[in-house]
This record gives sequence, C-alpha cells and structure tokens, in this order.
Amino acid sequence: MTEKTALIPATHAAPPARFSHGVRKGNILQVAGQVGFLPAVPGQPPTPAGPTLREQTLQTFANVKAVLEEGGATWDDVMMMRVYLTDVDHFAEMNEIYDAYFEEQGLKAPAPARTTVYVGLPKGLLIEIDALAVLG
Amino acid sequence: MTEKTALIPATHAAPPARFSHGVRKGNILQVAGQVGFLPAVPGQPPTPAGPTLREQTLQTFANVKAVLEEGGATWDDVMMMRVYLTDVDHFAEMNEIYDAYFEEQGLKAPAPARTTVYVGLPKGLLIEIDALAVLG
Amino acid sequence: MTEKTALIPATHAAPPARFSHGVRKGNILQVAGQVGFLPAVPGQPPTPAGPTLREQTLQTFANVKAVLEEGGATWDDVMMMRVYLTDVDHFAEMNEIYDAYFEEQGLKAPAPARTTVYVGLPKGLLIEIDALAVLG
Repeated sequence: MTEKTALIPATHAAPPARFSHGVRKGNILQVAGQVGFLPAVPGQPPTPAGPTLREQTLQTFANVKAVLEEGGATWDDVMMMRVYLTDVDHFAEMNEIYDAYFEEQGLKAPAPARTTVYVGLPKGLLIEIDALAVLG
Repeated sequence: MTEKTALIPATHAAPPARFSHGVRKGNILQVAGQVGFLPAVPGQPPTPAGPTLREQTLQTFANVKAVLEEGGATWDDVMMMRVYLTDVDHFAEMNEIYDAYFEEQGLKAPAPARTTVYVGLPKGLLIEIDALAVLG
Repeated sequence: MTEKTALIPATHAAPPARFSHGVRKGNILQVAGQVGFLPAVPGQPPTPAGPTLREQTLQTFANVKAVLEEGGATWDDVMMMRVYLTDVDHFAEMNEIYDAYFEEQGLKAPAPARTTVYVGLPKGLLIEIDALAVLG
C-alpha cells in the first residue's frame, strides 16, 4: 500500500472546497489548478498578485513550484503543464514570461509538455496552471 | 506486458464514439469525462438527471464512482478531479455540493487535487468531471 | 533515477515556447496539445492542414501519433485523449472522423478514455488534442 499525501504549502490559503493543492502517491505528483494568489494572509480573502498577466503568471509559477517542493519534486520532474488563459491575445506575452521564467529556473531535464487553451475563469483571474509530475 | 482494461459500468450507455468510460493499466486508472446522465435505458437516448446543477453534479459523481469501482478503485485513489462548469456563477454552489458529497463518502485518504475551469458543454449539460486515479 | 526524455518528431516545428511536444519518463508518456499543423517547412510559419474540421482532425491525429511513436508507444498505450473543440456543433462530425480513424488504425487494446470540451483556440484552429499514455 502506497501512501497518498496531501501537499499543503505554508504559503497557500485553504482551498475553497474539499480538495488538496497537491497530492503525491508513489512517484506520481499532481498539482491542483493554481492561480496568481499571493501568499495567504490569515483573515483576509485570497488576493491576486496584481491585475497584469505578468504578475499573475509569475505568482502562479511560484504557487505551482511550492506544491512541487512540498512533495519533494522540482520543475525537472514535471511532465505536463496545463495552462488556462482567458484571452487568445495573451498567448504571446505568456510565452515570453514562460520562457524567461524557465530559463531562469535552469532546468536540467527536458521541458515538460504543455497544453494551452482559452476558458472562462473567475473575475480578475487571467491564468490558471496545473501540473503532473513523475518523480524518481 | 501490463494489460489495459476497459471499464464499462452496467449503468452506462455506450459512449458516443470509440472511447472507453474508463481504462486501467497497471496501477493507473483514467476516468473519461462524465456528465449527469441517468443510468442508461435501452432504446432511449442519454438523459440528464435533471436541469439543476445539484442533480447533475450528484449524478456525475455517481457516474465517476461507478467507473472507479469497475476498475477496483475508490475515491481515495483519485489524484485529480477535473471539473468543467459552464458558468462561473455556479462555482460556489458546486463547491457546497462537492464538500457535502465527499463528507458523506467518508474519505480516508487526503482529498484529490482539482482544477475547475469554465467551458462550453453540449446544450442542457452544466457540469462534466473526469478523474485520474493511482491504485495500490 | 529514471531518465526524462523529450520527444521531438522530425516533422514537428519547434514549439512556440519552452515546452516539449512530448516527454517520457519511465512508463509514462505525455503528449503536448497538438493541433492540425502540417509537417514543418523550414523558414515558414506553422500552417494548418486546411480550414475544415476533417483536415485538421486527421492532421492532429497524425501529429499525436508521431509523438507517441517517437517515445516508443502506439495508440494502444494511450489512456486518455483530451479533445478541445471550439464549437459544440462540431461534436458529431468529430466523432465520425474519430471512429473511422481508430477503426482504420486497428486498435488491439481497449480504446482510451476521452474528455471533450469546448474552448477558445487561436484563430483558424478548430481542434486540439493531447494524450497520456502508459507503456509496457
């Protein structure tokens, strides 16, 4: 029996429902959809890092990374990134931010696969990302 | 060679195309996108459990669960739930139904991760859910 | 330590950002979102196979298959297909194309699970598909 562990970074607000920000079981780690919320402040509602795509994307990366690290993983273990944008016109700018971020992170393994689609998100949110990692 | 098995609950109508409601291979189990269709009645087209979000969500959960069980899994094995809604205004109500349902199911392991996005669905359908489980 | 490998079919243009068309690690293979782009021609921008759903769907299948094969997998190893359409009215036609294609491919294992949702895609693209495979 392999244990299933909830991954709960100290920076993260409690999820708005009965789900985990991430779970790991054996070598599989799934990160829940992360958005650009700043580190949680007790007693205050979740607040996006800012109104811009850049601010939200970088904060979303930080939030995904915190869940990965909580589960003993790094970006190098990530197999798939699912990027949800609200506006097709954000694609080019998101890619620039994406490339610069991963350049800076210094990946040692091949970059993950990725799917980007355009959906509705709660008001004020421009991007959401989830990730599947395989460790070991 | 690990066998890949199709998971076909007796309650489910045949899929509208050449895909399986679920598949299992080794310890990985993938549930296809489920909607709120009632148990199939031979000779009749698939019918949603009702027009409300509550009716459809609960039926969708039942349909996901049937596929999990067909593959020897339980909710506790689920790593990721992907929830597709058609309307951002349904988020709060879906979360209430979600929490009450999983409270009632008595999970022993940590809750799965989850991503919720807002998409288009066929007319009359308000919610679709798929799930990835890791057994053992 | 299991190696993570990037899957880069010779026919594929470089991705528009720092991601891989596919990755494999151990027995898990993830195909990135593929669209109906024709085989890349050096010095030319990616071009869809045609304006119709049929042309784009068949080319998308070919592109997914090329990534699977690059990783030593076949359609029979695919657990999950995620199909993104832009228009609910395309569902029936896509299913016809889907069924005929997989009939022709002669699957030996059960068909993968599938989720189909309706999202926005970049102008001119009618379908995007990604896939998760488990080998062995």
